[in-house]
Amino acid sequence: MERITSLKNPRVLGWRSLKDRKGRRETGCFLVEGRKMVAEALASGFPVEAVLADEARLHELALPRGVAVYALPEHVLAAVCDTKTPQGVAAVVRITEPGHQGRRLAVLDGVQDPGNVGTIIRTADAAGFDGVLLSGQCADVYSPKVLRATMGSVFRMNLRVTDDLPGALAVLRAGGYAVLSSQLDGEPFDEAVPGIAEPFVLVIGSEGNGVSEPVRQLATHRVALPMRGGAESLNAAVAAGIMMYGLMRGK
Amino acid sequence: MERITSLKNPRVLGWRSLKDRKGRRETGCFLVEGRKMVAEALASGFPVEAVLADEARLHELALPRGVAVYALPEHVLAAVCDTKTPQGVAAVVRITEPGHQGRRLAVLDGVQDPGNVGTIIRTADAAGFDGVLLSGQCADVYSPKVLRATMGSVFRMNLRVTDDLPGALAVLRAGGYAVLSSQLDGEPFDEAVPGIAEPFVLVIGSEGNGVSEPVRQLATHRVALPMRGGAESLNAAVAAGIMMYGLMRGK
Repeated sequence: MERITSLKNPRVLGWRSLKDRKGRRETGCFLVEGRKMVAEALASGFPVEAVLADEARLHELALPRGVAVYALPEHVLAAVCDTKTPQGVAAVVRITEPGHQGRRLAVLDGVQDPGNVGTIIRTADAAGFDGVLLSGQCADVYSPKVLRATMGSVFRMNLRVTDDLPGALAVLRAGGYAVLSSQLDGEPFDEAVPGIAEPFVLVIGSEGNGVSEPVRQLATHRVALPMRGGAESLNAAVAAGIMMYGLMRGK
Repeated sequence: MERITSLKNPRVLGWRSLKDRKGRRETGCFLVEGRKMVAEALASGFPVEAVLADEARLHELALPRGVAVYALPEHVLAAVCDTKTPQGVAAVVRITEPGHQGRRLAVLDGVQDPGNVGTIIRTADAAGFDGVLLSGQCADVYSPKVLRATMGSVFRMNLRVTDDLPGALAVLRAGGYAVLSSQLDGEPFDEAVPGIAEPFVLVIGSEGNGVSEPVRQLATHRVALPMRGGAESLNAAVAAGIMMYGLMRGK
């Protein structure tokens, strides 16, 4: 175990950079905070590069073997973390993307709100989906707010970010995937579901603009949930949840 | 039209108090901000007590007749409002609760997060529910954050807040309502739905503790959504959305 006390230590500066997308891109790592998330990281297949522990609370923590552990004063750990009460522990985890994401995928086409992105990943996990593919315009999946909203599902879903979503969807469609685009002018979702077999991808568009035009053109099905009252639309994470559970009904 | 310029004017002090639950309780009013919400308030059956307008933007605004309009300098309007950019207009609306809420109700038993409360009201509207009944432990439905998340559905749903949720549910149950309690150890939701007829209430519990014990004991059905992956639970608004749309399927 190494002890670091200075906020200006190069390792500390590197960890602090993980709060920003730029720092995560440059290092290929992200930071998880709190005991539950650190335990989930260690139990997952993700490489954990370092565990950061509050030196005053070492006796409370079950620290892993085979992983570099750094003991930090409370104020240094607090400076690295985004949460105000990181429960004395955090971990630096290497971003890993799977070669194959699976046969039941959610696709996020520019979903901006970090809570929505994280909640959709959590819901995809609960619904029994295999993975989530995100366009580069989405809220960054490895940002602290998104990670918190996933409630640990970030370690259980096959996640991938692409800067060419239409290209990635074209490959999937050519490989036999049904491509469902969720859009307000689509056909009724419940009527479309019986005609949809695996493998499939369900595309959720951005909060303001919906599914982008290049992605709409790749859809095999355009679907909409009924709007019965005066509401014009649903929250993106709610709509995604209703459709994901709808696609898995009876499975 | 009356012009008010002082932050210390008694009316201004009264409007500013609407940011807090205490002020709303004392006055029986709430504040909505922005052109869309003000228009929805004026078109609804809710009494609008006053419209507050930025005096420099009066020419941009379509002001109503038969309602007291106050012209305020920008900084006074900003002090009254919660949003940073209230689009030059806000309205003071009298809280009204319906005598009868309808036959398809959502019940919120201590839902704490304002975004969840507002999103559930919005989703209930879209799903075709008639009303939402809230326990006094929920985030206050007339707070700025909840109002924003409803996206105007606050004016379209029959809303009621009760300090005795078990008592209110006992009355509904005695009146023939099915009472569905959403809880992790319930029977599979999709298997329960065919046995449920109107009138019904769907109870959503708090984010941390679920449905409270007195309410569980009043349930005619205890239901759960499947958790297929490693996720332990769903976000409360997502779970509510999946169940509300599930109950309305085919209707």
